[in-house]
Amino acid sequence: MQQIKIGLIGFGTVGAGLVESIQKNGELIARRSGVLPVITKIADLDLHSDRGLSLPEGVLGSDAMALIASPEVEVVVELVGGTTAARSFVEAALKLGKPVVTANKALLATHGEELFALAKEHGSEIYFEASVGGGIPCIKALREGLIGNRIQEVYAILNGTCNYILSVMESHNHDFELVLKEAQKAGYAEADPGMDVDGIDTAHKASILASLVFGQWFTAADVEVDGIRQVTLHDIHYAASLGYKIKLLAVIKERAGRIQLSVNPSLIPERSLLGHVSGVNNAVWVKGDIVGSTMYYGRGAGRQATSSAVLADIVDVALNLRGNCSNRLPAFPLFEQYQGLLSKEELLSRYYLRLQVLDQPGMLAIISGILGKYQISIASVTQKEEIGDQASVPMIILTHQAKSLDMSQALAEISREKCVLGKPVLFHIEDLT
Amino acid sequence: MQQIKIGLIGFGTVGAGLVESIQKNGELIARRSGVLPVITKIADLDLHSDRGLSLPEGVLGSDAMALIASPEVEVVVELVGGTTAARSFVEAALKLGKPVVTANKALLATHGEELFALAKEHGSEIYFEASVGGGIPCIKALREGLIGNRIQEVYAILNGTCNYILSVMESHNHDFELVLKEAQKAGYAEADPGMDVDGIDTAHKASILASLVFGQWFTAADVEVDGIRQVTLHDIHYAASLGYKIKLLAVIKERAGRIQLSVNPSLIPERSLLGHVSGVNNAVWVKGDIVGSTMYYGRGAGRQATSSAVLADIVDVALNLRGNCSNRLPAFPLFEQYQGLLSKEELLSRYYLRLQVLDQPGMLAIISGILGKYQISIASVTQKEEIGDQASVPMIILTHQAKSLDMSQALAEISREKCVLGKPVLFHIEDLT
Repeated sequence: MQQIKIGLIGFGTVGAGLVESIQKNGELIARRSGVLPVITKIADLDLHSDRGLSLPEGVLGSDAMALIASPEVEVVVELVGGTTAARSFVEAALKLGKPVVTANKALLATHGEELFALAKEHGSEIYFEASVGGGIPCIKALREGLIGNRIQEVYAILNGTCNYILSVMESHNHDFELVLKEAQKAGYAEADPGMDVDGIDTAHKASILASLVFGQWFTAADVEVDGIRQVTLHDIHYAASLGYKIKLLAVIKERAGRIQLSVNPSLIPERSLLGHVSGVNNAVWVKGDIVGSTMYYGRGAGRQATSSAVLADIVDVALNLRGNCSNRLPAFPLFEQYQGLLSKEELLSRYYLRLQVLDQPGMLAIISGILGKYQISIASVTQKEEIGDQASVPMIILTHQAKSLDMSQALAEISREKCVLGKPVLFHIEDLT
Repeated sequence: MQQIKIGLIGFGTVGAGLVESIQKNGELIARRSGVLPVITKIADLDLHSDRGLSLPEGVLGSDAMALIASPEVEVVVELVGGTTAARSFVEAALKLGKPVVTANKALLATHGEELFALAKEHGSEIYFEASVGGGIPCIKALREGLIGNRIQEVYAILNGTCNYILSVMESHNHDFELVLKEAQKAGYAEADPGMDVDGIDTAHKASILASLVFGQWFTAADVEVDGIRQVTLHDIHYAASLGYKIKLLAVIKERAGRIQLSVNPSLIPERSLLGHVSGVNNAVWVKGDIVGSTMYYGRGAGRQATSSAVLADIVDVALNLRGNCSNRLPAFPLFEQYQGLLSKEELLSRYYLRLQVLDQPGMLAIISGILGKYQISIASVTQKEEIGDQASVPMIILTHQAKSLDMSQALAEISREKCVLGKPVLFHIEDLT
C-alpha cells in the first residue's frame, strides 16, 4: 500500500481532530483511494497538553521549519491560523515544492494572490477546501462540479457563530448581547467575537469564493461588510411577521460585467432553503447559467467538520503526487475580464428600513415623501407599538429595488427630520427561492 | 490550447443540451481547465430533426460504432439511455480503452458491476455524475469531498417527476391522477409514467449511491421499492396537519453491518431541509461519521442540468488524459465487508397508518389492541370526518419505531377486522432534522 506522508503544523483543536480522524478512518481512506494517509511529523509550540491521542515517539516537535524541510514530509497541512507565522510556513513549504493543505481563510483572503503565484513558480499546489464552509465540499463543487457553468450568483451563510446567534435570538427570544454571552460560555463564540459578529470572517470566505467564481483575485478589503451587532430581537420579529428570516449573508453577483461582493445582515424569505439553515450550519447557494440553482449545506466549522475537508484535500494531493499530475486543475485561472467591483453606492437592492418616529399624525407622509424624492418605491409599511417610550413608535418599511446611493441620501435626509429618533436601521432584502 | 475530442452518442434533448452548453461555455471551460472540449462526432438515428444548433459538416452521423472507433474520438459520451444499445456502445468504447461519460442510471443499476470490471480490464474509466441528481455534483461530493468519512445514512429525493407531482398535489389541492395528467401535458412526466411514479428510476439511482457509499455493488433489484400512486391528497393533508411532508425518499443506511436500501413514500418533518425541496428539484442528504450532516440540492433532470454534470465529467476525463493519470481515483473499490441487506421484514421504522373504519364506538380499542399485541406503540391517533360515506371515517395512526415484520403481521390482522374497510395505507416516517 502506498502512503502519503503528512507534516501537520498546528496541534490545536482542528489539528488534533485531523489526527483523530486519520487514526479512525485512515484504513478506509486507503482502501478507497489506494493511498494511506500517515502523519509523520507534527509541529506545535505546546508539546505538553493532553489531546487525548497517542502518537508514535518522535512525531511531535516544536520546529515547524524543520518539519517542512523533513524528507519524511511530502505534504504540509497548515492549521495554525492567522497571517504571520502561518504565512511563513506556507511560503517555506511552497518554495520547497511541497503541496500545502490549509484551512486558513484569513491568509488566503489577505495574501492569496502572492501565495498562489509562489506555488506556481515552484510547481507546487495549495488546497483549501476547509477554508470555506467547514466540512461542506463547496470549493470542489465550484471548482470542479460546476466547471461548465458561468456562475451568476452566490448567496452564502458562511459563519456558524453568527448563524447560531441569530437562530438562538429567534428561537429563545433573547437579545443579541445575552445570546453572545451564552455562545461565548458554550464555546460557540470567541472571547473577542469581532472576527465573527462584525462579518470579517464571512468577508474572508466571501473573497475566496468570489476569486474562484470570477477567476481573479479579491481580498477581504474588496468586500463591503456589515456585521450583526445592529440586528435586534425586534428586527427578527418584524422580519418574521413579514415572512422573512434575518441571516448574515455573503452576496457575490455579476451584473453587466461589474461585480457585487458584500456581507450584510439580510432578510431572506422564510420559505427559502437558505432561510431554513439554522444553528452553527453553513450553506452556499450557487446559481450557474447551465445548472440553475444548487445548494451545499453542512457544518461550517469545528474540529471534525474541518477535518473532513482537510482529508479530502490530502487525498487529492496524494492522488496527484502518486499519479505525477500535480496541478492537474489550474488554480484560480483568470478567465474573464470584469470591469471591477460595484461600490457600496452602486448596489441595487430591496431594503428593510426600521425607523423610530414620533407617535403623531403625518409621519408616514414625511418619510414616504423623502423616499419618493429619491425614486425609492415602498413595498410595505408596518407601524408597531411594542417598543420605545409612549411618545414614539417603530415604523418598518420594505422598499422595492433601489440604488444604494439613493437610499443613503434619503436616509441622511430622513435622519435630519426631528420626528425621527435615533439611528435608522437598514438591511438588504434578497428574494431567494 | 489542448483539446479533448468528444464523441457524442444520442442527439436527443440532453445530447442537444450538451452541444449547446459546449458552444456557449467551451471557451470558459478551456480557460479554467486548460483543455477545450470539442464535439468531433455525433451519432444518432435521427439525422434530420432540427435541434436549433449549427454543426460543422460531417459531425453528425448514424453509425455509433464507427464513432466509437474513430481516431477523432477520445472520450465517448453516452446519452442514449436504456440498457440494450447503450450497453453495447459503452462496452465497445471501454474495450478500445476509451473513457465513457454516461447519464444512464438504468444501465449502471443493472450492469454496473460488469461494466466497471470491463473498464478496469481495459484500463479505461466510466464517469457517471449525471446519472444521479441531475446537475447536482453529488457523486463527486460522495466519492471525493467526503472520502474521509464512513457514510452512515443517505436520505435522498431523486426523482423530479415524483417530487413535482407531490408538490403540486399539495399546493394546488389536486388528486394524483389529475396532477399526473397535467404533468404529462407539460412534459414533466412521460406518457408511460411507471419508471418515475412507481419508484423504479429512484431505485436505480439509490442503488448507484449505495454502491458508492458502501463500495460494493447493488442493483436496482436489491432495493425495496414502493411508488407514489398510493399517496392521496388526504394523506398529504393529514401529514401536513401533523407537521410532515410526504416525499418519495430513497433511504440508504447501515446498521450493525447490515444495509437498508429502500425507496418509499415517507413522511419527513415539514421543518427539515429535505421537507423544503419542492417541484422538480432533487436533494441528497448525507451523514458522515466525521463531517456530520450535509446536503446537496439542485435540479434533478432536464437538458441543461444534466449537461452541467456531463461537462464536469468530461473535464475530469480530459485532465486525467492530459495528465496521464487515468484511473486517478479507483472506481467502486470494495472497502468494507457488510453482512448483506436488511430484508423488507427486518427494517425498523416509524409508521404512518391510515385506516378507513366504521364510525362506531370501540374502533380504536380494537386497532390499538392488535398493534399492542405486536409490540407496536402508538405515538398519536387522529380520527377525521372529512372523507368516506357517513358510515365510516378515516383513522390516522403514527407509531413509534417498530419492526416491519411486526407491522405487516399487525396489518394483516387489522385488515381482517370487519370494522376496517378497504386497504390500509402505510408509509414510513423518517425524523430528519
